[in-house]
Amino acid sequence: MAAAERTAPQLIAQHRPTLDQALEAIRTRAYWSPHPEHPKAYGENGSLGMAEGKAAFDALLGSRLDLGQPGTDDWVGGEVSPYGIELGVTYPHADIDVLLPAMRAGGRAWRDAGPETRAVVCLEILKRISDRTHEFAHAVMHTSGQAFMMAFQAGGPHAQDRALEAVAYAYAEQVRTPENAEWTKPQGKRDPLALTKRFTPVPRGIALLIGCNTFPTWNGYPGLFASLATGNAVLVKPHPRAVLPLALTVQAAREVLAEAGFDPNLVALAAERPGEGIAKTLAVRPEIRIIDYTGSTAFGDWLETNARQAQVYTEKAGVNSVIVESTDNYKGMLANLAFSLSLYSGQMCTTPQNLLIPRDGIRTEDGPKSYDEVVADLAKAVGGLLGDDARAGALLGAIVNPDVKARLEAASGLGEVALASREISNPEFPDAVVRTPVIVKLDGARKYWEGADSEAAYTSECFGPVSFAVAVDSAADAVDLLRRTISDKGAMTVGAYTTSQEVEQAVQEACLEECAQLSLNLTGGVYVNQTAAFSDFHGSGGNPAANSALCDGAFVANRFRVVEVRREA
Amino acid sequence: MAAAERTAPQLIAQHRPTLDQALEAIRTRAYWSPHPEHPKAYGENGSLGMAEGKAAFDALLGSRLDLGQPGTDDWVGGEVSPYGIELGVTYPHADIDVLLPAMRAGGRAWRDAGPETRAVVCLEILKRISDRTHEFAHAVMHTSGQAFMMAFQAGGPHAQDRALEAVAYAYAEQVRTPENAEWTKPQGKRDPLALTKRFTPVPRGIALLIGCNTFPTWNGYPGLFASLATGNAVLVKPHPRAVLPLALTVQAAREVLAEAGFDPNLVALAAERPGEGIAKTLAVRPEIRIIDYTGSTAFGDWLETNARQAQVYTEKAGVNSVIVESTDNYKGMLANLAFSLSLYSGQMCTTPQNLLIPRDGIRTEDGPKSYDEVVADLAKAVGGLLGDDARAGALLGAIVNPDVKARLEAASGLGEVALASREISNPEFPDAVVRTPVIVKLDGARKYWEGADSEAAYTSECFGPVSFAVAVDSAADAVDLLRRTISDKGAMTVGAYTTSQEVEQAVQEACLEECAQLSLNLTGGVYVNQTAAFSDFHGSGGNPAANSALCDGAFVANRFRVVEVRREA
Repeated sequence: MAAAERTAPQLIAQHRPTLDQALEAIRTRAYWSPHPEHPKAYGENGSLGMAEGKAAFDALLGSRLDLGQPGTDDWVGGEVSPYGIELGVTYPHADIDVLLPAMRAGGRAWRDAGPETRAVVCLEILKRISDRTHEFAHAVMHTSGQAFMMAFQAGGPHAQDRALEAVAYAYAEQVRTPENAEWTKPQGKRDPLALTKRFTPVPRGIALLIGCNTFPTWNGYPGLFASLATGNAVLVKPHPRAVLPLALTVQAAREVLAEAGFDPNLVALAAERPGEGIAKTLAVRPEIRIIDYTGSTAFGDWLETNARQAQVYTEKAGVNSVIVESTDNYKGMLANLAFSLSLYSGQMCTTPQNLLIPRDGIRTEDGPKSYDEVVADLAKAVGGLLGDDARAGALLGAIVNPDVKARLEAASGLGEVALASREISNPEFPDAVVRTPVIVKLDGARKYWEGADSEAAYTSECFGPVSFAVAVDSAADAVDLLRRTISDKGAMTVGAYTTSQEVEQAVQEACLEECAQLSLNLTGGVYVNQTAAFSDFHGSGGNPAANSALCDGAFVANRFRVVEVRREA
Repeated sequence: MAAAERTAPQLIAQHRPTLDQALEAIRTRAYWSPHPEHPKAYGENGSLGMAEGKAAFDALLGSRLDLGQPGTDDWVGGEVSPYGIELGVTYPHADIDVLLPAMRAGGRAWRDAGPETRAVVCLEILKRISDRTHEFAHAVMHTSGQAFMMAFQAGGPHAQDRALEAVAYAYAEQVRTPENAEWTKPQGKRDPLALTKRFTPVPRGIALLIGCNTFPTWNGYPGLFASLATGNAVLVKPHPRAVLPLALTVQAAREVLAEAGFDPNLVALAAERPGEGIAKTLAVRPEIRIIDYTGSTAFGDWLETNARQAQVYTEKAGVNSVIVESTDNYKGMLANLAFSLSLYSGQMCTTPQNLLIPRDGIRTEDGPKSYDEVVADLAKAVGGLLGDDARAGALLGAIVNPDVKARLEAASGLGEVALASREISNPEFPDAVVRTPVIVKLDGARKYWEGADSEAAYTSECFGPVSFAVAVDSAADAVDLLRRTISDKGAMTVGAYTTSQEVEQAVQEACLEECAQLSLNLTGGVYVNQTAAFSDFHGSGGNPAANSALCDGAFVANRFRVVEVRREA
């Protein structure tokens, strides 16, 4: 489509209704999404269907993805899919002393375009990405190791939802202050004082997105789109194992920006050579004024400490707990938990790790169950869910990297194994590393976790398909351990199963005071590790697992500032 | 008034209309204020009149201000008015290991009260403060050195406006997310997924307000009320020379909180012994999760670097410039500038310091004026404005502390003195140090300020009644120097006088890019150093002078977090 066909008024006419719906959704937080979840919903009106998406992905393999970026001094790549295939895609490697200045060149026009035009340009970028959802699904699958269906949904529509949500928040925040105001102050019998004021949202500078391995689009889009929609240029530094999904995103953004008459260099990719570690270099460049990061606590803390010239938004590690105290739907609880532990081999920042279970057992609608029974029944539920290899593979995906595999293998040495991890073969991808989760029994007596220097295994994150069935002395102790875990290590999610008003109140109060998101008594088709854009907050920004939440006013409000020019009327 | 008479519904009925007007004002940014500026507007409906306010202040002198705080282990004080009188008021000195825990005790009830009740309780506190405006005026005057009328207006209604503005932003931010939501996601032919969600704004913890000497209420209230309205307890650490205005504020807050059924310890005072420096101790306490600070760049930077457990909002030093390039109202310009330089002896963070004037002179409606003529005419305008000692005193107030006096005295050695500072006697307060501003001519040739290690006097803040008439080579150079000054040192305000569209555009673009608030061609009764709540932003939060602006969404959005509890419907 030619540039002339993508004027701002056309984009506004096309996308404003969607923006308005998104603005309404974040206000009501009812269910809403403009991005279909079903693979068969694609293939018409310009979007790639299943076969076309696969073909588009296959055509990328072994290719050079030339984004037309200035300062490209080399071509780099080397992604190997967790499913075993080498992607062979190469990407531009940038001389950042050339690229960063080039990214600023188009900044004034982007700033002057204003919040509405920026929002609809972002929505057009999302439209292009949505049209390529099938292609992105393969790219996400073969970088994150997610199973196809999850890569399709979480990497496609759900990620696009989170992006749109960020655009909506960014737009709303910028238009809270009017463009113009007339200010007239009465002066008794004298003439009033009268001023004309103009307010302009201005960007902070260049934003840096540091992507992660497991959810390159879902975790990357909110920061990328929030920064772009608030007028900043965005430099995308993907995880070296998950470049392709974000490179395709940059490609789509650059296309749309150019077609709409803006400088494509407002969005650029920073791919790196193996071991180059350019995130550390980029993060402290004076041009970088915003950083979004998902990854390890160590590097997140490093960024917060060292990138002082930037606003730093981090999602780091946490330790997620589920308190299992009582239930009136024992089977539903077990099924729900089994799914939560299995989905994407527990490689979600939201997957429960610690199951806090009173050692005297729990109450259920079928009478009391001992701690051992609960753990055994949960192991059985996981085993049943994953009993069929094909179904198991579609749920588990592949182990994303050797570190996770090593951690899984070490976990069985931590205590009594209630459910051993099982190796599963994937007929389509024989080199994929597919493993079922391990459940390890641990003693949660207070003496093991009280005290600042606790070395109890369940007080640290063990990222991957590893869960601990922690025998605690009482429900009250479970709540205390929950509080301590959130306070010390953070948590992206908390779950609880209880039929007791008293315990429910205690868990709620713990979550309110320690600032963690709580799912209560989930026994159906919603899982503690899933959040929906426009309705659920992902993280709270108030405990050590993350300093921001997806998405709220705080996530966008400091990505721009408002400059006022006033003069006498 | 008894506690029972201050229920939440009654406070809502009383104050909700004011809150709604404030919410509308921050949206339109038209003129609005519920707090009368004229001293004669007080004295009825429960507010103290002029004589009563003075009597109330006099009664405070030499007294012990017992706030009924827990952990009080001593009584401290020692304020000496810049007008020469010893206040002799003593304040509770706290054992912080007792006080901080006590401040948390009432936190849950305050959180559970919700945004609206918190807002109207804050408005009731402001009502009590407003009723005592005459008393506060004397307290501000005799700590800051402001002249009475300024202390009355800036320390009274204008500060109360800024507080109300912060409450309005805080309320709006918290109610962006609904209390409850029903979420129903269609599942094709299967039953929909349905969740009930509850969203609760939760505070970060205890907020610390570190007050300043010159504007204890105006600069202190936004942070104090933003934190309190978002559910946090607030510990007020005043500047040792300006304790009384904030101590009276704490007193009013504690009274209202108790009457409304909340724990008065949600707001407490931390007065200190001479040289104790408790701000540094308090700032890194783990209980302190928010810090608001106005003061030196050195300590602001220290807070940002060291108080990593807290959200830190700082207003630091800056170098404010006015470009004088051309005007069609030469007299109006001179009068406006003369007032700006004189008001409160230039002891405002918004007072212009550098007057950037082309060395070849400027164009006016009366023809060209040389650089020397402009500077001489400005000196004459200041001299005329301050020619009458009584009028001068009412405008200048007193020099706030010996540091400012020393800086003023040193300034005349920096270059050719265009206007010498003059000593003025105050018949009512013979010990007051009252001085007119000095204007010093300096050479602004590019070679003197280009380069990172410039030692040109005008590249640093010289806080007090000191202005530099900087001869620049051209208007373009003036804009370049402006950019560099903002970028290196920050600026709370920028002014410009120009009739040239081109120069106006260049100055505007510099302010948009460097993120500074611009006043253009002010020749009447509005001055570059004054901002009005609900309409003007104070600072931008985007240059080194301050990391936040008064007031916007970013100022409030991260003082609380939202915790979601979801369960199956």
